[in-house]
Amino acid sequence: MKPALVKSWIEVPADCHFPIQNLPLGTFFNPREGKMGPCVRIGDHVLDLQILFEKGLISLDSNLLFDQWEFIFEGGRAAIRSVREQASDLLREDNSTLRDDASLRDAALHRVDDVEMLVPVPIGAFVDFYSSEHHATNVGKMFRPQGEPLLPNWKHLPVGYNGRASSVIVSGEEVIRPCGQTKSPQAEKPSFGPTKELDFELEVGFFLADSTDLGEARPIGKAMDMIAGVVLVNDWSARDIQRWEYQPLGPFLAKSFATSISPWIVTLDALDPWRTTSPAQTPEPLPYLRDSQRSHYDIQLEVAIQTAAMTSPQTICRTNYKEMYWSMAQQLAHQMVNGTNVQIGDLYASGTISGSNPASFGSMLELAWKGERPILLKETGETRAFVEDRDTVIMTGWCQGEGYRVGFGEVRAAILPSVGGAG
Amino acid sequence: MKPALVKSWIEVPADCHFPIQNLPLGTFFNPREGKMGPCVRIGDHVLDLQILFEKGLISLDSNLLFDQWEFIFEGGRAAIRSVREQASDLLREDNSTLRDDASLRDAALHRVDDVEMLVPVPIGAFVDFYSSEHHATNVGKMFRPQGEPLLPNWKHLPVGYNGRASSVIVSGEEVIRPCGQTKSPQAEKPSFGPTKELDFELEVGFFLADSTDLGEARPIGKAMDMIAGVVLVNDWSARDIQRWEYQPLGPFLAKSFATSISPWIVTLDALDPWRTTSPAQTPEPLPYLRDSQRSHYDIQLEVAIQTAAMTSPQTICRTNYKEMYWSMAQQLAHQMVNGTNVQIGDLYASGTISGSNPASFGSMLELAWKGERPILLKETGETRAFVEDRDTVIMTGWCQGEGYRVGFGEVRAAILPSVGGAG
Repeated sequence: MKPALVKSWIEVPADCHFPIQNLPLGTFFNPREGKMGPCVRIGDHVLDLQILFEKGLISLDSNLLFDQWEFIFEGGRAAIRSVREQASDLLREDNSTLRDDASLRDAALHRVDDVEMLVPVPIGAFVDFYSSEHHATNVGKMFRPQGEPLLPNWKHLPVGYNGRASSVIVSGEEVIRPCGQTKSPQAEKPSFGPTKELDFELEVGFFLADSTDLGEARPIGKAMDMIAGVVLVNDWSARDIQRWEYQPLGPFLAKSFATSISPWIVTLDALDPWRTTSPAQTPEPLPYLRDSQRSHYDIQLEVAIQTAAMTSPQTICRTNYKEMYWSMAQQLAHQMVNGTNVQIGDLYASGTISGSNPASFGSMLELAWKGERPILLKETGETRAFVEDRDTVIMTGWCQGEGYRVGFGEVRAAILPSVGGAG
Repeated sequence: MKPALVKSWIEVPADCHFPIQNLPLGTFFNPREGKMGPCVRIGDHVLDLQILFEKGLISLDSNLLFDQWEFIFEGGRAAIRSVREQASDLLREDNSTLRDDASLRDAALHRVDDVEMLVPVPIGAFVDFYSSEHHATNVGKMFRPQGEPLLPNWKHLPVGYNGRASSVIVSGEEVIRPCGQTKSPQAEKPSFGPTKELDFELEVGFFLADSTDLGEARPIGKAMDMIAGVVLVNDWSARDIQRWEYQPLGPFLAKSFATSISPWIVTLDALDPWRTTSPAQTPEPLPYLRDSQRSHYDIQLEVAIQTAAMTSPQTICRTNYKEMYWSMAQQLAHQMVNGTNVQIGDLYASGTISGSNPASFGSMLELAWKGERPILLKETGETRAFVEDRDTVIMTGWCQGEGYRVGFGEVRAAILPSVGGAG
């Protein structure tokens, strides 16, 4: 277990996700001042970094533009580390600079309930991998019951595809049930309407704090130093739309209507005490995917659902990010190996994270096994095979230390009924 | 045939792609002045629109920012039409304002050889469709020889997938042969190295000049008014990488290393005389895809290749954009129907455009039929099954009027040898 050695003058309970050991990166909007900017989170507060920069309490060698993370990220992971360490110093219990300056505190510290959290950086590209062996196996069994559940390429490369970046939204924003084409096996023709199989996918995604040029193809040993940190991702999926559209070029409209993320980028530095060994990979991957670092992380993950009739959410999935087969470093090395240029603000998601036991499956499709084993919601006696209108899905995640947590907060979204579509 | 009624005081030969009837939109960089900005092309010249805006010779109701197309596009297709009509007036043979003002001409007119053309707008999303029936049938025959060439969904929806926007480059930029994983059917394990099956794909893509909100799902009748215009697209593909990676989530690294486009957005207004009826669609598509407008276009397309040993290129494909099964309006309506938000600068490509006869196939894969019928290059006696290092691929396209052409110029790229990758 990892003890918390440092304390802040801001009181943080032991089960809070945001002690001084975390200080995740976010972008807040202050409606009273009509102003947005980069911040870190501590307890129930956000710390406005731009004000501290303007007051000379945080400095960076290289950067003149300090008003958005994508400018700060130009300095790479070293710049993030520097900013976070300076913020940490200001928040230590023995540092009086901010602690004892009421007017500076008023200007720089906001209660998180008084501000709005935004998508932390503009997302240029959203890529979704498919890197959990249990998930890929489960889906293979359901979608291709006649064949091997894992396709031949799966253990040789981290399968992934490009998603739609424009519809990545932040926790709290509602999701409108999408319409689309579906075709049941019995039907002669496809039909159009709201999806009947709306699903969540529990994922973890990482944001890039670095860019490459076309043809550069940086090797796996450099990958972890390009990553700003990690968020929770709910990669909403319409399973009936997906089944009909996805061959031969992959998911398209089944995924592009919305992807929800948590607002806090938890840095790799904050996660470092929970770095863990990778699972054995057999067959051994090609050299460009061999990862000598420990780049898996022990992050506890949960999904809960609350229907309109329920008064509190029920947890329906408990799993762990260390279950992944392919690591972040391997995913990023694969993405770069053909020489494409990656960019600051790129978001790479893990794919659904499922463990081996049925209570650890990361999607409703798997938890209710195509609707064959609907989930019982104990408070109301309702059942769920997929997500219904007015349901709220809440994902959370944290690393457990000794007497403290480094957490992600949550990614939460309620489903609104379809608005009918253009059909 | 469409006669050219209007003439410019700038002399333009009959086979030039850029008479006053065209005036396509581009973004140029002037290296002497270190300045970039929006322009239209006429003959061998680019006309700097920002200077004309600053001099009060071009105006727009709404726009204070006139230095980049994405700001001008905020006004939608109406704003584009207005700018283009004002530019056209200034270039008419009977308008003396610019014609007779030598210092203004010096400032606003540059020889195209003296400037560098850029990607015309920042591309937020790149989506690639698969909308040519002949192409999809050819690929189906080659990749799935045992089954029906067209999958059951193909005639019900315009199949498409998200590509990588960051690696869309402009004509003239070289393409580095990508490395990646491949596995031949005989091999026991995959191997890593430069692709041995580098291919071009002849496509036409359209840029959006409009945005929607999440959940808006604008109907097909509004689609054409959201489109700024059209460019040529060479969607480079590594066929061996694609074959190994593409199941079940679609093409990824096989396509993301580079996509080349022509620098000139030819507006739908300029193309209007070549608007033509759509092919009959059987079965009739669902209502949201029914298109009562004529939204296909008669655009002649050609691909040529020149090896390092050749002194001039040889045309290896002649086809026409009117061969498409699904129209731009249908593609965009499909993209929007699930309520995703589309954005100014989104690029939607057609998919490879192949006609019915073998000389009209739009990719090397089809022209040389998986290498079974290599293309003979007459000047040197060389043959090609795929694109080799130092080959240059040149695509061009135009609409033929009576004594004039409205054209796209070209999209040209030479292939550089692999730099080895990170493997």
